[in-house]
Amino acid sequence: MKYAFANRVRHLQSSAVRDILKVVGQGNVISFAGGLPDDDLFPIEGIEDAFSRVFATGKKSLQYMETEGYRPLREVILERMRNKKGITGFSADEVLLTTGSQQAIDLFSRVMLSPGDVILTEDPTYLAALQVFKSYEAKVIAVQSDNSGMLPDDLEKKLKQHKPKCIYVVPTFSNPAGRVWSLERRKQLIELVQKYNIVVFEDDPYGEIQFQQDETYVPLAALDNGQHVMYTSTFSKTAVPALRTGWIVGPFQVIRMMSQAKQANDLHSNSLSQQALYQLCCHFDLDAHIQHLISVYNSRMEVMVRCLEQANLSDVRFVKPKGGMFLWVELEKSINTTALLTQAVEKGVAYVPGEPFYAGVAQKNTMRLNFTHSTPEKIEQGMSLLVELLSSESAKKTVPIGTY
Amino acid sequence: MKYAFANRVRHLQSSAVRDILKVVGQGNVISFAGGLPDDDLFPIEGIEDAFSRVFATGKKSLQYMETEGYRPLREVILERMRNKKGITGFSADEVLLTTGSQQAIDLFSRVMLSPGDVILTEDPTYLAALQVFKSYEAKVIAVQSDNSGMLPDDLEKKLKQHKPKCIYVVPTFSNPAGRVWSLERRKQLIELVQKYNIVVFEDDPYGEIQFQQDETYVPLAALDNGQHVMYTSTFSKTAVPALRTGWIVGPFQVIRMMSQAKQANDLHSNSLSQQALYQLCCHFDLDAHIQHLISVYNSRMEVMVRCLEQANLSDVRFVKPKGGMFLWVELEKSINTTALLTQAVEKGVAYVPGEPFYAGVAQKNTMRLNFTHSTPEKIEQGMSLLVELLSSESAKKTVPIGTY
Repeated sequence: MKYAFANRVRHLQSSAVRDILKVVGQGNVISFAGGLPDDDLFPIEGIEDAFSRVFATGKKSLQYMETEGYRPLREVILERMRNKKGITGFSADEVLLTTGSQQAIDLFSRVMLSPGDVILTEDPTYLAALQVFKSYEAKVIAVQSDNSGMLPDDLEKKLKQHKPKCIYVVPTFSNPAGRVWSLERRKQLIELVQKYNIVVFEDDPYGEIQFQQDETYVPLAALDNGQHVMYTSTFSKTAVPALRTGWIVGPFQVIRMMSQAKQANDLHSNSLSQQALYQLCCHFDLDAHIQHLISVYNSRMEVMVRCLEQANLSDVRFVKPKGGMFLWVELEKSINTTALLTQAVEKGVAYVPGEPFYAGVAQKNTMRLNFTHSTPEKIEQGMSLLVELLSSESAKKTVPIGTY
Repeated sequence: MKYAFANRVRHLQSSAVRDILKVVGQGNVISFAGGLPDDDLFPIEGIEDAFSRVFATGKKSLQYMETEGYRPLREVILERMRNKKGITGFSADEVLLTTGSQQAIDLFSRVMLSPGDVILTEDPTYLAALQVFKSYEAKVIAVQSDNSGMLPDDLEKKLKQHKPKCIYVVPTFSNPAGRVWSLERRKQLIELVQKYNIVVFEDDPYGEIQFQQDETYVPLAALDNGQHVMYTSTFSKTAVPALRTGWIVGPFQVIRMMSQAKQANDLHSNSLSQQALYQLCCHFDLDAHIQHLISVYNSRMEVMVRCLEQANLSDVRFVKPKGGMFLWVELEKSINTTALLTQAVEKGVAYVPGEPFYAGVAQKNTMRLNFTHSTPEKIEQGMSLLVELLSSESAKKTVPIGTY
């Protein structure tokens, strides 16, 4: 039987992320592909204790809950954002708990983007966000960016030219590029969104995984007057992914509309996990745990960077990450990383080709390497395999294997 | 600031269900409004044990998971559907785990309904499903129905006339009407969907809460050839709501497309809860628990029905529920239950007015009463308050308080 799907499924396709998650589960491949935290570091005792504390509160903990999510957790999140990020001026009514921050991106798009509406992004940017925007049949326009963020001139030009509905950015340790916006660029963006009355979606899943303790990266939400920035983050990278708990904070009108969309979408997210995360925040030293994650991930990043530096590949370019989970590598022009992936996996190492992260013209000689999910030994082994492949003559004679 | 929302938000509005959940949390009102199971009956020890078993499997249980959900739970669900419902011929690849069955309705609509597409429903039908269809700007057309299900002649007429994309039905213990379709009507519907190559969404959240143990209600999915029926159900009514785990089974092409939509929506649902439900199914006698629920809920339903019968209200009509969670009551024509709700809540009792459940012309003299969330004593007290109100002269002089 032929099924008459909605028009919008044209833009739905199995993503690289999905294929990656499948590769990761298989056999002997050393994978730098996924965006996974290291499960060996998961605070399982703390989480088991947190669940016990929830069960001890009684059976009501297992009942339906309001769409916005467990209010005491929303209060704790507000307090953490205030203390750690300088984001102030919001109440618990302006926080919506979601199934991972992915759902925040989706619900925001659902209430903001009609078919044909324009959304501006960095280039490259988070590919699963691009998939969401396209699934709502929006038009994604890339703004020229360098290592300090979007170029304000190009941003203003595109604000005038395309009259976008909103802007999507990952200003701190971006996925995939590992980019950190300078304070100046952040301020320039806020000036422009205030001037043109545009909503900006600030995606900050990695902000707490910060290697340079002496630097401060001020979120856009802390620079605005509370009207233009929707700030989202998650417990997936700092606690664990399986609890699927993210949040979004922003102006009440938008949060309320997203909450109504969420009601249609799934009524509410997993409330037992929200209660457990509340208990975790109260009875477990999450900040000390994050410090431990930072030190482990930082040393793994150093190993990966050293491997790459010592390889002396011709024309390789990268910026040493100041945080997050990814190293973004630009190779010599003749290498097509999409085409090379099959050879790499056969050799025993996986990465994500850069191509699907681009909203505009893709630079096909790029790749994203994850350094959080492999031990230093595995990183050395995997990088050795990868460098061997990239140094080979066959790497330069790659042909495309299809599109994403 | 004025936010430029997407066109589709026109159809998003805070629902009665939402307002109900808020009323339920408040003070002294006896609520027959929500669709809540009784938290006193939640198998909290079994669930706590199930979580312990998951934590004992190790830290990998807390990692990201594939979008379709925890495969062993999908296998268990298939086995239960085979043994209890006669639904066969599907593999775990044709099961998608969702955040409650609400998300199954939403994802199905997302991949099937373009703006302007027609979906056929019973009348009245589940109001949160109506909200989803409208949020995708679909046109909902009500098919004439009686207590045995949709009228086949009217269904065929509307299949020809409106060329719908799909049909949404709750054939067993419907919400709100508590209706059970006869086997003949089920077969007639399947004949028609096969003749016209239409997909039917069978929503069965209440099917296991069956009071008449000697009767058999065959799901549409067990009558089809595997190509036309998407069958969905949930653990929210049989285990607990807070784990937010539902599922949908159907033809692979549709499941795959929904899975891709789910990837954009939230990557995957709460995988820790899915693993816990798997352990619950393996190590806890869920069927004995369901039998206990049935016996408690059946006796509460009997109390509610007896109260209504003894009240001798004029022109009252209802069908004694054979299962599920709701008693649907039609009152004399002059009573507008929407308008009467404020008085009822002031008096100390809440219900859901029938109006928002209608896709077509609403019968405003109807109400939905939940009998699962109150003790027999509370049911007697609440029904006494309600009957007193309905017998009063003021009940007949109600004026509308606005629309949903």
